[in-house]
Amino acid sequence: MAKATLTISSKNYSSWSLRGWLLCRMSGIDFADQPVPMDDSSRAELLLLSPSFLVPCLTDGGIKVWDTLSIAEYLAEKFPKAGLLPTDLAARAHCRSVSGEMHSGFHNLRSALPMNLKAKFTGFKVWAGAQPDIDRILAIWTECLTTYGGPFLFGKTPTLADAMYAPVCTRFVTYDVPLDSLANGYCKTILDWAAMKEWTAAAKLEPDEIDELDVEF
Amino acid sequence: MAKATLTISSKNYSSWSLRGWLLCRMSGIDFADQPVPMDDSSRAELLLLSPSFLVPCLTDGGIKVWDTLSIAEYLAEKFPKAGLLPTDLAARAHCRSVSGEMHSGFHNLRSALPMNLKAKFTGFKVWAGAQPDIDRILAIWTECLTTYGGPFLFGKTPTLADAMYAPVCTRFVTYDVPLDSLANGYCKTILDWAAMKEWTAAAKLEPDEIDELDVEF
Repeated sequence: MAKATLTISSKNYSSWSLRGWLLCRMSGIDFADQPVPMDDSSRAELLLLSPSFLVPCLTDGGIKVWDTLSIAEYLAEKFPKAGLLPTDLAARAHCRSVSGEMHSGFHNLRSALPMNLKAKFTGFKVWAGAQPDIDRILAIWTECLTTYGGPFLFGKTPTLADAMYAPVCTRFVTYDVPLDSLANGYCKTILDWAAMKEWTAAAKLEPDEIDELDVEF
Repeated sequence: MAKATLTISSKNYSSWSLRGWLLCRMSGIDFADQPVPMDDSSRAELLLLSPSFLVPCLTDGGIKVWDTLSIAEYLAEKFPKAGLLPTDLAARAHCRSVSGEMHSGFHNLRSALPMNLKAKFTGFKVWAGAQPDIDRILAIWTECLTTYGGPFLFGKTPTLADAMYAPVCTRFVTYDVPLDSLANGYCKTILDWAAMKEWTAAAKLEPDEIDELDVEF
């Protein structure tokens, strides 16, 4: 069967592209990523800091799946042994719940601390409006890591939830957000994850098309 | 086993409460809805027009599931015959994709046309910024209704996608949004749906606590 294709936008700036790509990697699906040109739609996706129906979009054997959670459920059904979702019923519900929170919420965090893998702002002053989002995320992480024992949110191996929160780990590092040792350890786990290292290396080589967007970072 | 509980906020104003409640109804789960008091969190949920982790929240036999899509997947697994998701693989991916779009997007529509089941604004002038959201929703509906034959988005019976778009149908009626006959017919299907009628009747009897919120509608 032909390789699946995942359309993505910027590897440096698009947190939704990263999430979709991590899910594909975790599933083991044979796929190639395909950047969409920086047109008006991908601009809108980055400017509005919200997912668009263009990226990420997985095309697999004639089936088109877009939206990150939909891609996750598709891959979890197709590759049940890949562990994208926990096998325990309560843990699975918990994993989907915190993933859903990331999918639809945390707008202040997203606009105040946009993903930017190339940058590092030491001593960055976080806008007060983003603090409740940060606090909620740290509460989610603490609950997961203490309940399931780490090093990933739902135990020994990465799940959907780690793909959803991976861009947050990069933001906390980029914007120098103070973290306790538990959260710090979790960010380190994510940044040391082989798939994450591969994506980050590619992001750092990406030409800086975003300059055209006239956005302040 | 004890009845499940679904926490909700306002029946008149909370579109996320409505979605969670419709999903429970569709699944056939034995549940009671439980309004949370109009405190700061539910205020925030309504003001920010985004889901909160407090409502809707389903508690079922000791398992706590929040976030609308997570509730849907939980119920779809527990009640596979209820048809919350289409049985066909491609249709299921499509259903989850358009549901995911509603879950994370359409912010302009949500802020310009908040759900308000008691109101009717004849000749309402829709803010131009919300028009692309309306256009995208109508494109989604048209594709679904022509592909699967209606009267619901994925065929003869309601699915997750109908729960997700039901509050949009009420908004289109409340704000007098001009629709073609296909979209008009779909809105009528949703408003005539027995579960929807039951919710709407209860919403109309609800005391108007939202006045305290000092929000313009």
